[in-house]
Amino acid sequence: MHFEGSAADSRREQRQLVDALDEDRADTDEHDGRRADDVACDITQLRTPCLVLREHVMKRNAHVMIDRATSLGCFLRPHFKTVKTIGGALIATGGSKRRLACSTLAEVAFLAGHGFDDLLYAVPLTASKWAEVLDLHSKLEMFHVMVDHHDQLDGMERRAKLRPPPEGRPLSIFVGVDCGYHRDGVDPEDSASITLVKRLDASAIFTFAGLYTHAGHSYGAVGPDAVRAISVVERDVTVSFAARLRDAGIKVPSVGVGSTPTCSLPPPHLEGVDEMHPGNFLYYDTTQQSIGSCTEADIAPRVLTRVLGHYQRSNTLLIDAGWTATSAQGADQGYGAIADHPELRISALKQECGEITSRDGTPLDYSKFPIDSILSIIPYHSCAATQQHNQIHVLDDDDRSVRCTWRICKGW
Amino acid sequence: MHFEGSAADSRREQRQLVDALDEDRADTDEHDGRRADDVACDITQLRTPCLVLREHVMKRNAHVMIDRATSLGCFLRPHFKTVKTIGGALIATGGSKRRLACSTLAEVAFLAGHGFDDLLYAVPLTASKWAEVLDLHSKLEMFHVMVDHHDQLDGMERRAKLRPPPEGRPLSIFVGVDCGYHRDGVDPEDSASITLVKRLDASAIFTFAGLYTHAGHSYGAVGPDAVRAISVVERDVTVSFAARLRDAGIKVPSVGVGSTPTCSLPPPHLEGVDEMHPGNFLYYDTTQQSIGSCTEADIAPRVLTRVLGHYQRSNTLLIDAGWTATSAQGADQGYGAIADHPELRISALKQECGEITSRDGTPLDYSKFPIDSILSIIPYHSCAATQQHNQIHVLDDDDRSVRCTWRICKGW
Repeated sequence: MHFEGSAADSRREQRQLVDALDEDRADTDEHDGRRADDVACDITQLRTPCLVLREHVMKRNAHVMIDRATSLGCFLRPHFKTVKTIGGALIATGGSKRRLACSTLAEVAFLAGHGFDDLLYAVPLTASKWAEVLDLHSKLEMFHVMVDHHDQLDGMERRAKLRPPPEGRPLSIFVGVDCGYHRDGVDPEDSASITLVKRLDASAIFTFAGLYTHAGHSYGAVGPDAVRAISVVERDVTVSFAARLRDAGIKVPSVGVGSTPTCSLPPPHLEGVDEMHPGNFLYYDTTQQSIGSCTEADIAPRVLTRVLGHYQRSNTLLIDAGWTATSAQGADQGYGAIADHPELRISALKQECGEITSRDGTPLDYSKFPIDSILSIIPYHSCAATQQHNQIHVLDDDDRSVRCTWRICKGW
Repeated sequence: MHFEGSAADSRREQRQLVDALDEDRADTDEHDGRRADDVACDITQLRTPCLVLREHVMKRNAHVMIDRATSLGCFLRPHFKTVKTIGGALIATGGSKRRLACSTLAEVAFLAGHGFDDLLYAVPLTASKWAEVLDLHSKLEMFHVMVDHHDQLDGMERRAKLRPPPEGRPLSIFVGVDCGYHRDGVDPEDSASITLVKRLDASAIFTFAGLYTHAGHSYGAVGPDAVRAISVVERDVTVSFAARLRDAGIKVPSVGVGSTPTCSLPPPHLEGVDEMHPGNFLYYDTTQQSIGSCTEADIAPRVLTRVLGHYQRSNTLLIDAGWTATSAQGADQGYGAIADHPELRISALKQECGEITSRDGTPLDYSKFPIDSILSIIPYHSCAATQQHNQIHVLDDDDRSVRCTWRICKGW
């Protein structure tokens, strides 16, 4: 990977760009497809259910993480899978439009179409996606993919015989590393993993971009100590593997770590790490709150819903948000929380409706929740809630006025 | 409600239309937005993850339910929330393009735009949706909404002072009845529920269309006896309430019951019931299979996915379908099943990837599941899986060839 100037200069620029972005909101609006004057100017005029963004909170989350990465001597490569919007990507990259991780090729194409570059498709790549990957490779200055298995390379090499990458522009490939999550990635203790990297390093059609790991098991940890224990392992496993590769004569251009819990509660130092790539931190949610990654005040999105009915027999009220609006994740945790109403909980979510009751079983005071009044759901899992919508309404700092609407990238 | 000719004639026509539709597939294709030649002709050419439809299975499901409704002396008003496609609605209505229940106003508008009519928005309506409802009311010959609370009518009456329904065309309103599900609907034992219907009946801007109930608690029943016990109560509660309304001098034009379990395992007779309105039966899924509503052979949709990687350390393989492709519902039931591979189960679903392992813990034979080979997921909840996609690929009877692609209605 090439950086203009030194890495330290680039990291300083990473921070400065954020400040500049705050001064120039217009840039965000230009890329969202819909302008503020297309949409209602007050949340009470929005059709419910809908997804809204407390943008000032998301910006703060982005600033905190960019500052943290800079101070830890890393670049931030935010994961796009949470926000899936151009406006969100601008804030996440501090306006640089460079360096994002993606979970689908549709996301890569969406970002590429809006002038973003240095994009990593962070899912093990197989040959069936070869044609699309080469198209994106030709459009982008820097496009990286990920592998963790010889068979993936076998398949791609077969495809490359029919359609190779352009002369002198090998496909940049990260190797996924399993740091204990055991979802994907090579076993860093297995010498065969070094063989895989050597194969990439020696290839004429591929180039080795570095290591990528994701400590997804940190989602199962609760409290700062438990998360930090994992973040230390995530760092050490990956940095050690990089050291063994270097001992074997292989240049390791970049070492990347990241999950929202481990990047929110990072180890004291990240020596040997070049990139952090969390995603959920841009929005956060009640899952991250319960892990200890954030407070409720840090959670940026809300699902707005209206009260449809009152049912004294069951001590519930009906809302017009079901799992189609928030996802069905987190049933045992009340699917998130109701903002400003800690006394309420969602007791059931159906396809297009939800039921709310009191948290302690006392009879609801229905006069406080008139039919058609708006309630605001703090998502249990903001990535999943976002995925259910085609757009997100961006609120001004008062959390009441809609400034503009961003399109959410869909598909694969 | 008006029917051409007698109700019995109409129900006979309901059956005949299905047979005619089988002869004329072109009608299905004309309305789906994309023709067969736009898409791959073999499933191996499809981008994964994707949703595919074994159309012959769905047609059989539709035929069985239409026959059942006809033989029980009822009309079928299929719920559109499961298929959300024009092609699916044509099959569900036997080509009549009449009589569907909808869960969103977006669905009503989508169907109205394709020549469908006699549509019921089966969610308690509140005043905030008044303007949209009146627009749809003006476009459709027969459009029905649902209420279950005086406050809903209060709100609408206030709006109607500013914008009333057209002269001589009151808004047709069903009253939701709680038959034991306790999600919504009026309490049929409460005399205040009769007052609500009287209010509708006496209104100049509303007209009383009938009763609508949904025995959603049947989803918690397992086995034919348990489901049938609920289907009997669903019928009796609603028919009894209708009788009390008639005793009070109110004409009850239609009595509707329905959930997929209770309509798949109906009571011996449905005397006094005019309409059945199940939805999930068009697709079915492993949830319905476990309740006893269907067999695995009756489940029409599949989520296609490809193998991305092999991980012997964790005895898993990685697939390119996560909860974004199937929903995260049914974790404790393996999120559904893998077609043709009862020895496999999905052990985890992440955002864009899933993990598969053996059901009994024996080491996977990876040679049977090469990287890039296709696996086919039988959904745990087909409504939720469908909701995750923008389109569904319709397969020919061989379950291998893609005939056309239908657009899925999104939003609210």
